[in-house]
Amino acid sequence: MADWKKIDEITKVWIKEAGERIRTALTNTLEISSKSNANDLVTNVDRDTEKFFINKIRETFPNHRILGEEGGGDEIEDANGIIWVIDPIDGTMNFVHTQRNFAISIGIFEDGVGKLGYIYDVSRDELFSAQKGEGAFLNGNRLENLQETSIETAIVGVNPFWLTENKRIDYHLLHKLVKDARGTRSIGSAALEMASVAAGWFDAYIALRLSPWDFGGGWVIVEELGGKVTRLDGKPLSILEKSSLLVAKPGVHEVIVNKYLKEFVEQKI
Amino acid sequence: MADWKKIDEITKVWIKEAGERIRTALTNTLEISSKSNANDLVTNVDRDTEKFFINKIRETFPNHRILGEEGGGDEIEDANGIIWVIDPIDGTMNFVHTQRNFAISIGIFEDGVGKLGYIYDVSRDELFSAQKGEGAFLNGNRLENLQETSIETAIVGVNPFWLTENKRIDYHLLHKLVKDARGTRSIGSAALEMASVAAGWFDAYIALRLSPWDFGGGWVIVEELGGKVTRLDGKPLSILEKSSLLVAKPGVHEVIVNKYLKEFVEQKI
Repeated sequence: MADWKKIDEITKVWIKEAGERIRTALTNTLEISSKSNANDLVTNVDRDTEKFFINKIRETFPNHRILGEEGGGDEIEDANGIIWVIDPIDGTMNFVHTQRNFAISIGIFEDGVGKLGYIYDVSRDELFSAQKGEGAFLNGNRLENLQETSIETAIVGVNPFWLTENKRIDYHLLHKLVKDARGTRSIGSAALEMASVAAGWFDAYIALRLSPWDFGGGWVIVEELGGKVTRLDGKPLSILEKSSLLVAKPGVHEVIVNKYLKEFVEQKI
Repeated sequence: MADWKKIDEITKVWIKEAGERIRTALTNTLEISSKSNANDLVTNVDRDTEKFFINKIRETFPNHRILGEEGGGDEIEDANGIIWVIDPIDGTMNFVHTQRNFAISIGIFEDGVGKLGYIYDVSRDELFSAQKGEGAFLNGNRLENLQETSIETAIVGVNPFWLTENKRIDYHLLHKLVKDARGTRSIGSAALEMASVAAGWFDAYIALRLSPWDFGGGWVIVEELGGKVTRLDGKPLSILEKSSLLVAKPGVHEVIVNKYLKEFVEQKI
């Protein structure tokens, strides 16, 4: 049986080390390069960070498999055994444009069930972490369980793009929701928007087209706090499939699925 | 003649002191109160912070007038002389919900012309400041002038609410803009979205209904960097009037006004 406590400890050390490498690379990059080729250099940081994790995992846990955004991991067609779902830089556009509001996201799953989750806001040095059954934490401080709330008092994370005509959803459905919510925000990093739900800063987060590495870490963290993490139609997520995403406090989740999005039909992405 | 350098120095000291008071009040508030009455207590912080500035200004500059969101300042009907335009907490909803992504915003105007501007991101301890003709700074480091850019590579700040049916604008106009932009974001604080343009993190920011205290500080800072700050129809702002707001890098500003918003008509708010 996997020693989750030990895996948790070592993963945190790796994440902090990777974050430090990213901060250093950014400082050097921004010093030596003009703005135009800074974009290429920061893309390299993305790939290097994935390699850093892959090397560490292969060395320490040779039987674990890896699903990574940058493609350096394994071809994964089933959820058996232990799988690391890694996004080395979630929020790439923010990373390139602003060097803030991006995150390292890692979820560790056993037979498809989330066991450990991490979202590291590198520029703020804030690490969200959770171990299934053992609680969720922000920089080591235990986060409170998410309480039921209503849409009228809810802050909802949603990218403005999904409120314009698009292939994934009849945007009118989201318009009703946006008008009824207390406020809407968009950070531009799915991981950090899920972390915002975990911390109680957002009450819900909606996205139409995400990959497992975007939501792998946040899934474990938010569920550990009693939040709901599903597709937009309320059906379960899978670490093997791209899908829509609805992350929300209890109460708000059911209302969004049953009142605002009951006409929404999930498409194969 | 006013000694702007001296006013600049003392204002920065006051802002840092006010920020420290807010951080302390938040720590105490969150310790002693339940979530439900935390809202009232943080609203008090808003009023107390305005009072703090008003007392300091009255004591030090008895001839200056004050326009403040919380109503503790003067009744102002003309722009003559020196006027402080103060928002003690810009981004109140963020302040209440998340205790981050809110700012102190101060603009100091002489005969309607911006002389000094400040936006202080309290939770990040980041102070944006500018003195007309003397440059703009982030925590004392000089910010680069804003370069021309195109809509296709632009990150645009816009609240998702304005993309739904509303009284201020035909939302279809904004839909075209959102689709053509590289990305859109929403922080929920006009001051911090203007600061984001100043820092080059956003390329433009659009709002439909703001008061002078929301944009007073950012106006001075962004203009000092060569950015454009106007109403959405391209006409000048006034510290005496609520209005729409378009803050953007050169190039992007003209395209937004002339291509996307040429059918937009400013309404009296």
